[in-house]
Amino acid sequence: MENSRSSESTFRVTPLTRVRRQPKRGSYEKGDAFAILDEGLVASVGFAHEGQPLVLPMAYSRDAERLILHAATSSRFGHALANGARLCVTVTLLDGIVLARSAMHHSLNYRSVVVLGSAVELTTRVEKLAALAALVDHVSPGRSAECRPPNELELRATRVFAVALEEVSVKRRSGDPCDDADDLELPYWAGVIPLEQRAMVPIADTTHAPRADVPSTASGYTRCKS
Amino acid sequence: MENSRSSESTFRVTPLTRVRRQPKRGSYEKGDAFAILDEGLVASVGFAHEGQPLVLPMAYSRDAERLILHAATSSRFGHALANGARLCVTVTLLDGIVLARSAMHHSLNYRSVVVLGSAVELTTRVEKLAALAALVDHVSPGRSAECRPPNELELRATRVFAVALEEVSVKRRSGDPCDDADDLELPYWAGVIPLEQRAMVPIADTTHAPRADVPSTASGYTRCKS
Repeated sequence: MENSRSSESTFRVTPLTRVRRQPKRGSYEKGDAFAILDEGLVASVGFAHEGQPLVLPMAYSRDAERLILHAATSSRFGHALANGARLCVTVTLLDGIVLARSAMHHSLNYRSVVVLGSAVELTTRVEKLAALAALVDHVSPGRSAECRPPNELELRATRVFAVALEEVSVKRRSGDPCDDADDLELPYWAGVIPLEQRAMVPIADTTHAPRADVPSTASGYTRCKS
Repeated sequence: MENSRSSESTFRVTPLTRVRRQPKRGSYEKGDAFAILDEGLVASVGFAHEGQPLVLPMAYSRDAERLILHAATSSRFGHALANGARLCVTVTLLDGIVLARSAMHHSLNYRSVVVLGSAVELTTRVEKLAALAALVDHVSPGRSAECRPPNELELRATRVFAVALEEVSVKRRSGDPCDDADDLELPYWAGVIPLEQRAMVPIADTTHAPRADVPSTASGYTRCKS
């Protein structure tokens, strides 16, 4: 059953993943979720610590239908995950500012993914090395082969976790403002200011000159768009 | 006491707000936190729903030493806030990709603020109108005076909340990679790819032509940098 479900193209909707506000902006298509996760660089990871929700920005990577996270071995977050804490991993890409004719129709254009679940710790050396390479390659494809891999000390100091991409929803807004019909003649400008995240010219380490040229993946850096 | 504390320039550190991992990257300066909150557009707001942490992207605004949030009157989030739920509001600005000579020193340059607390609902008409105007003006300064203000129906459909900026911490990373001394001669490039969020040329509502020219705040849009 698990295998057959993971070959489907949509996530199963649950009471917690169903998009309640503005359901037309929701999606449960795996392709939509994967595209956002692959483009994003930072996840906002929520977990509870003694009843207090904490949301921390973290690097992540997608490996097929799992999300990879890592934590310092001694960290509060690592302990929480190893103890099976429920998690919410949210990735948000901001695409524009929506200026409407009325205050309440002002909005943002965005694409977001919300992943719920618990983490499984990856404990074998092979699994940990692959997951840590995936975290580096998520930020810059192929980079894990162009740097020193983790050594034994670093592996011991780092816990690696996987969260199954099962309880997942996408929510997004795009395009024009949606003003009320009665407001369309009001004497205000309305439209969208598109926002774009751009990579600038790479800056070589200023403290110790690198022993290699800037790789083309850095000088022509872009995030995957799908 | 409250008054005298709010005139101080730093937040009081608590066990929950103390930055534990890489404490040198932490700050409790109000100026640092306010600058990040003022530049950000989206907050990742964490709260628990029946034991499950949820992290949702939301608009917000800073009003002196409070954060303003809003919710649909009938929403799960609005109910949780009105019932005094503990919150975590995290704003993250991404500044660059750090490519190091070793996999484990890869990193991101970022600035983030974590705000813990509970919300107070603002219930008077005057307070609600001011808070909703602040939400619009956060995205585009002065815009609340250049659009139709909320009407009675919209005010009833919207709950407005304030979270005191008291339990607050900043964490950020900037600058060069920090490789181990033993790795500095390795034949890999190391440095930073700076990232920048840019506003593009505004696009007027394509469904109904606006009855006004593009305001200069939209055509020359930038986020405050401090």
